[in-house]
Formats: sequence, C-alpha cells, structure tokens
Amino acid sequence: MQLEMICTGEEVLSGQIVDTNAAWFANAMMDVGVELQLRTTVGDRMNDLMRVFTERSHAADLILVNGGLGPTSDDLCCDAIARATGRALVEHSAWREHLQEWFKNRNRVMPPSNLKQCLLPEGAVLVDNRNGSAPGFRLKFNRAWFFFTPGVPAEFKPMVLEHFVPFMRATFGQSTATQLHKLLTFGHGESALAERLERLTPPAGITLGYRPSLPYVEIKVFARGADAALALPAYLDTLRAALGAAVVSERHSDLAAAVHELLVQNSHSLSLAESCTGGMLSSLLVDHAGSSAYLQHAVVSYSNAAKEKFLNVSPTTLANHGAVSTETAMAMAFGARSVLDSDFALAITGIAGPDGGSDATPPGTVAIALCDRTECWTQMLKLAQRSRGAVRAMSCAVALDMLRRRLLQQEVVVPYSVIAVLEQRRESHH
Amino acid sequence: MQLEMICTGEEVLSGQIVDTNAAWFANAMMDVGVELQLRTTVGDRMNDLMRVFTERSHAADLILVNGGLGPTSDDLCCDAIARATGRALVEHSAWREHLQEWFKNRNRVMPPSNLKQCLLPEGAVLVDNRNGSAPGFRLKFNRAWFFFTPGVPAEFKPMVLEHFVPFMRATFGQSTATQLHKLLTFGHGESALAERLERLTPPAGITLGYRPSLPYVEIKVFARGADAALALPAYLDTLRAALGAAVVSERHSDLAAAVHELLVQNSHSLSLAESCTGGMLSSLLVDHAGSSAYLQHAVVSYSNAAKEKFLNVSPTTLANHGAVSTETAMAMAFGARSVLDSDFALAITGIAGPDGGSDATPPGTVAIALCDRTECWTQMLKLAQRSRGAVRAMSCAVALDMLRRRLLQQEVVVPYSVIAVLEQRRESHH
Repeated sequence: MQLEMICTGEEVLSGQIVDTNAAWFANAMMDVGVELQLRTTVGDRMNDLMRVFTERSHAADLILVNGGLGPTSDDLCCDAIARATGRALVEHSAWREHLQEWFKNRNRVMPPSNLKQCLLPEGAVLVDNRNGSAPGFRLKFNRAWFFFTPGVPAEFKPMVLEHFVPFMRATFGQSTATQLHKLLTFGHGESALAERLERLTPPAGITLGYRPSLPYVEIKVFARGADAALALPAYLDTLRAALGAAVVSERHSDLAAAVHELLVQNSHSLSLAESCTGGMLSSLLVDHAGSSAYLQHAVVSYSNAAKEKFLNVSPTTLANHGAVSTETAMAMAFGARSVLDSDFALAITGIAGPDGGSDATPPGTVAIALCDRTECWTQMLKLAQRSRGAVRAMSCAVALDMLRRRLLQQEVVVPYSVIAVLEQRRESHH
Repeated sequence: MQLEMICTGEEVLSGQIVDTNAAWFANAMMDVGVELQLRTTVGDRMNDLMRVFTERSHAADLILVNGGLGPTSDDLCCDAIARATGRALVEHSAWREHLQEWFKNRNRVMPPSNLKQCLLPEGAVLVDNRNGSAPGFRLKFNRAWFFFTPGVPAEFKPMVLEHFVPFMRATFGQSTATQLHKLLTFGHGESALAERLERLTPPAGITLGYRPSLPYVEIKVFARGADAALALPAYLDTLRAALGAAVVSERHSDLAAAVHELLVQNSHSLSLAESCTGGMLSSLLVDHAGSSAYLQHAVVSYSNAAKEKFLNVSPTTLANHGAVSTETAMAMAFGARSVLDSDFALAITGIAGPDGGSDATPPGTVAIALCDRTECWTQMLKLAQRSRGAVRAMSCAVALDMLRRRLLQQEVVVPYSVIAVLEQRRESHH
C-alpha cells in the first residue's frame, strides 16, 4: 500500500507555522506499523490543489488530506476535489441539521458561511467530526482513496485515530509491523559511526538511519516484519558492542535528560560552575520538571572576580594558570561543591569564541571538571573551528557525559573522536 | 517561476523531527519576495527519490532539495539524481583536497566514507559549503534547475542565502522588488495584534503577515513595487503608533539581542539571579559574542540556601514572604547587584511547573525584579496554563524587556495583554 499525505494551507507552505499535524500523523502511522511514503504540501490555490490531487491520485493507494475544510473563502479543498473529479457539490442534509443543532446548543445562530460545510462532492462518504463544524469525507479518485480531514489539531487527531485508521485497516488489511529502536551517541561523527557499523551486515529487514542533532548523532534501527523483529535484540547487542562508550542513552533524546533521571533516582545533589557556557548547562537540566530535587545552585562566573567571590577560586590559581586551565576548572568545581556541600559539582571554563582567547588558549579551548566528595576529574579540550554555539553545546555534553558515567560507576573520561584532548587528570581531595 | 522544495529524509517524513528547515526556507524566500509553490517530502528510499525527482523535474522551474548528502548509506540524494538523469558519478578532486584539509585542520583523519561526498553527478556545478563536509550542487533536469543542499541547518541556511538566492536572481531575474520590514512584538497574541492593525487599511501593495515564534510574534510588513515602497515609512509610523509598547525591536530577532547591544554600547555591567528560569536568561545573553563585556555573574539560586548564601537574601524575607514573592525577587536582584557592584541586576523567581507550587503560588506564578544603583522595579506575574518551557521563556522575555526599557529611559513596567499581573511595585534604595 502506498500511503501519502497532502498538507494544504498557505500558512503551512509558507512556513508561517510549522506543520505539527504532519509530524504527528507520520508518528501515529508508525505507531500502527505503517510507513508514510510521501508528503506534498500545497497552498490554498485552486489550480495547485486540483493539480496535486490529480497527480497523486495516480500514484498512491491511500491519501490523507489535511486542512482547507473551514468556512472561509480560502478553504478550497472540497471544491477543488469536486472539480478535479468532475463531481457536483450536494448538500448533506443530516450534517446541516447536526450543525444547526450544534449552534443552537451554544445559543448561537449559525452564520451563513457554515452552510458551505454541508456541501460535499457527490458520492463522498461523510466522516464524523465530533469536535468541530467541518465534517471529514472520503472518496475514490483514480487509483487512490482520498480521506479529507480538518486542519484544527483537536479535530484532526481524533478523526485519524477513530475513523482513518479503522478505514485503512478494513480496506488494505494489516501491514507489516515496523519496530524502531534509537541509540543516542555523542562524540563521534556520522561518518565515523557509519564506518564502525556498516561492516556489521544487519539481518534481513533491519536498516539503520543516522540523524545528526548537534551535538549528538542519533542512530535509528528500523526492523520491518516479524523475522526482523525477532533478530532485533541480538543485532542491537552487536551494535552496542561496536559503539561502546559512543552510546550515551537508548531512552533519552539528550544527555541532560539522562543525567536528570539518574540524579533524581539516586537522590544526589549537584552544583554547577559555568563560565563560557553561561548558564546553558544549568538551563538544560532545569528544562526537566523536578530538577529542583537535585540542583542546589549554578554560578555563572563570567569574571575572575565572580570566580573568587562565589567559588573561592584563589587569585593565585587564576594568576598562575589562567582562567582557562584544568587547575581553575578543578578549583571552580571544588568550590561549587563545597559551598552547599553537594554530592557532585561540574565546572566549565573556556573560550567560546569567535573572538577572545590567546595563542595559548585560542577560541574553542575549554577546561571541564567533575568533583564528587573524594575525587576530581578534569580535562582540557580543543574544540577548534566551531561556532560559539557549538563550542558551548559540546562543552555541556562532555560535562554531562562525565557525570553520567560517574553515576553509572563507569570510567569517567573517555575519548571522543571529534574532540582533541590537550590534558587530562584525576586527583583525590585530601 | 514555479519554485518548489523537496525535503528528503526518513526522519522528516516519518515525523521523528519537525522539519524546521522547510519553514525556514519558505520564510527566507518570502524575505526576498518570492513565493514557494509546492513542497514534497520524501524518505531515504532510492525508488521514491528517483520518482519524485523525475516527476517534479517536469513541473517546476527551480527546485531546492534539502538533505541526503551526508556520508552514510542512507544519504542517497546524489546517487538518486545521477540515476534519474542518467549521469555518471565523478570525483570532484578540488573538493577532495578541501575535505582532506578540513579534517587535517581538526587533527582528524578523514574517514574513507567521506570520499563519497567528493562524488558529484557528471556536469553538476559544485556549491561551496563552508560549514561542513557535504558540498551542495546544482544541475538542470528537464524543465527544472535542481539545487541540492545539506540537511544540517548550520550548513543549509548559509548555502541558501549565499548561493541559492544569488543563483535564483541571476537565472530568473528579480521578482517585483519587495521590501520587508519586521516588527518584533512581545506580550500580545496574534489575533489581538491583528485586531489592532487590520482596521488601519494599508496602502496599495502593502500586506501584513504574522509569525508567532514563542514568546514573540513577529509582524512582517511587505511592500511590493515602487509606490508601496514610497508609502512604507508613513505606514510604519501608523503601525508603531497603534502597537505602542508591544514592539520590542525592529532590528533584532529576540530581546536578548536587543539588550546585549544596548549594554555593550553603553558599557554597563549586569548581574543575574535566576530561580525557575535556571540559567536560561544568562544563556540567552551569553549566546551573543562579547557578552563578557557586561555580564559579571549569574547565580542560579535554585534552593533557599543558595539564595541566602550567594545573594544575601535574608532568611526572614524568605520565611515571611516565600521564595516566590516580589520581596524575594527584589532581595535577589539587590543582592546580585551588590556582590560585584554591577550597574544593573535582574532576578527571576517562580514556579515553572507543571508540578510544585501551592494554592497561593500555583505553577506559572513568577516574580521578576530589576535593580539599578538607586531603584528597584518588581512585578509578580501569573502565566497560567502554560508549559514549563513557555513559563521560563516568557519570564526571561519580561525581565529583558524591563531592562531594555530602563536602558532606553522608558517606563520600565508596561502591560502585556497575554500576561496577568498580580502585583507591581517600585522602590528606592536608601
């Protein structure tokens, strides 16, 4: 079965709004094991709509059309499919009564413009809309069944789940089920990951996809059909073995979510000291509801004065080693942990760029430290030739990964192939 | 000229990610006065790609293709267009040298899989990518010029602006000269803004567009043709008068950028104290290179202990008024300003939700304060029925708008129609 979607609406095509219905629909289809094959987005212009309907009617078996059923002059879908298929528009008297009842129950008089929504192409089957005035409908045109749905999400989504999915199953049968498993990786480029994995020929029906989402690359493992589903667990183990420390989560979309969960589960407390990341690390954690359970404080110590005042970094350390040094990073983490006696502290100090720094510490030089109650780990990284945003995002990810690995009792510092390491050290407190 | 876009990628089609490149592109085209006519979204399957390329090649004049140029096995665009057009893939030796140099500058060895990115369809014109390893390219196929671009936004966007737009202009001519002026608004809904403006009939050739981009609504004023351009300045003045304090910038895309510029220009210093926003306010400013010139420190004082320790908020204030109160917000701002004697300080304390809070301070209750050397302004807001992210983003925007207005010597506190105000006060320090 070739399943397609046609999204209509000037505001969707022109990017005035991001089309969340489209993403929702594709996800909903994957949930029922069906893959969407093509999506066409078209504006509210009669000729464009008629042309797209006719073109797609020859290519697809089933087409979900979204939007363009409202009462205003730029809602053209019903008229366009009637013209494209050479059908008349006829009044659906039951829907007219339903609408009049609907307005009456709300003590409103039905505006004449709503009468338009009682007109359907001749022979079309009306689909109930329990949340709005625009009915859905379906009709066959050339090879394809067209299924028209309103654009309002609260009307669209129930119609898909309650009417479209049952119709699809009744008409085209159950399709092969698709399973999807995701591996979130950090520290390695898409091509380096692919190189490691592509020599491991997947079982039949299993394919890999890579989605870079700075600073991560998500690896998606699709298993299509029953045999592939059976082979999936063993193949995932093979992938995990090949990827090693590159995989930072299989359930979260970023490291902050993974660290948040570990800190909450283990009732640990955390403090942060940030320089070049400027609150980004803190904000990534605070994005998650419940962060107040563990986050005691974060200090954005942008100036040396702030590092001394809030974190007790000694002027001697700053003078001898500079603000961007493993010594200063350790002193920041040590100070941040001590103030309120947190279980852990992370510190980041660096040059985000594009300007600033010196020959010794050019933009992209970042020192990161993690302290717990007895030990401190630190590393100085070189994130060369990267934008300010990328340097900050990668620095946060390295810090979070160090803490994540510590919380899981793993080696704290691991190599990342996309990051050059200038210095690494581990020290015990006295 | 029929302009179309083809978005490729399993993850875009399948709704794993919302296609922000598509929305951005349509907006960027509107900015240069060109309307996108159709968008087709297709997965990473060779047959589907070849079929879509061939179909669209007969219908469009210019097609921007996005995604599918990476080094891995699911990046099929280059191969697909080569097969669809019957061209061989040939190595582009200059790009190979460029790539080898690129990896060398990052102290990395080029993985063999990147060699794939040096292969282009015979006769295709390479388009430089200054931010990544995948080159763009363009070629003519049937009626259409195809312009292939990488999916990574940081590579895609500059390529569109620096290469695609000039190519489009050179090949298809200038469309009617369109001027675009943007008004960034905050604190008022799209429909409320439209209501205020739509009674002011615009001069011929001038149209308005609204783009909500949380927590802002951007109003775009398009002037098409010479007469409209002449009428634009007076009409903008009419809009400014009607919008009043709703307009927060005419040159920046967010309030942080506007405040950053004002602080740098005036050589003022700033300190921050954040609770529920958790570093977001700081991070919004630190996004801008040069923020170290004014940002002395930011304290994310998530716990009461941190508020006392770092900001000298008295335990009595916290006990008498609670952590979320105008008194505590003022004390936080006062403390944050005093530590390093900054010119200004902003403080935010609230309940981001969705859980937490109390009957007196439910989720969405946020107190914000601004202190300068002599005075303090504070307000307590109710951001009801909003997500955690929205509460945090709106709180940051209100704080930044208060500081912006202070820096411009305007009334610091203004009403926002989408925000309920529970309490407002202004106090002098003694």
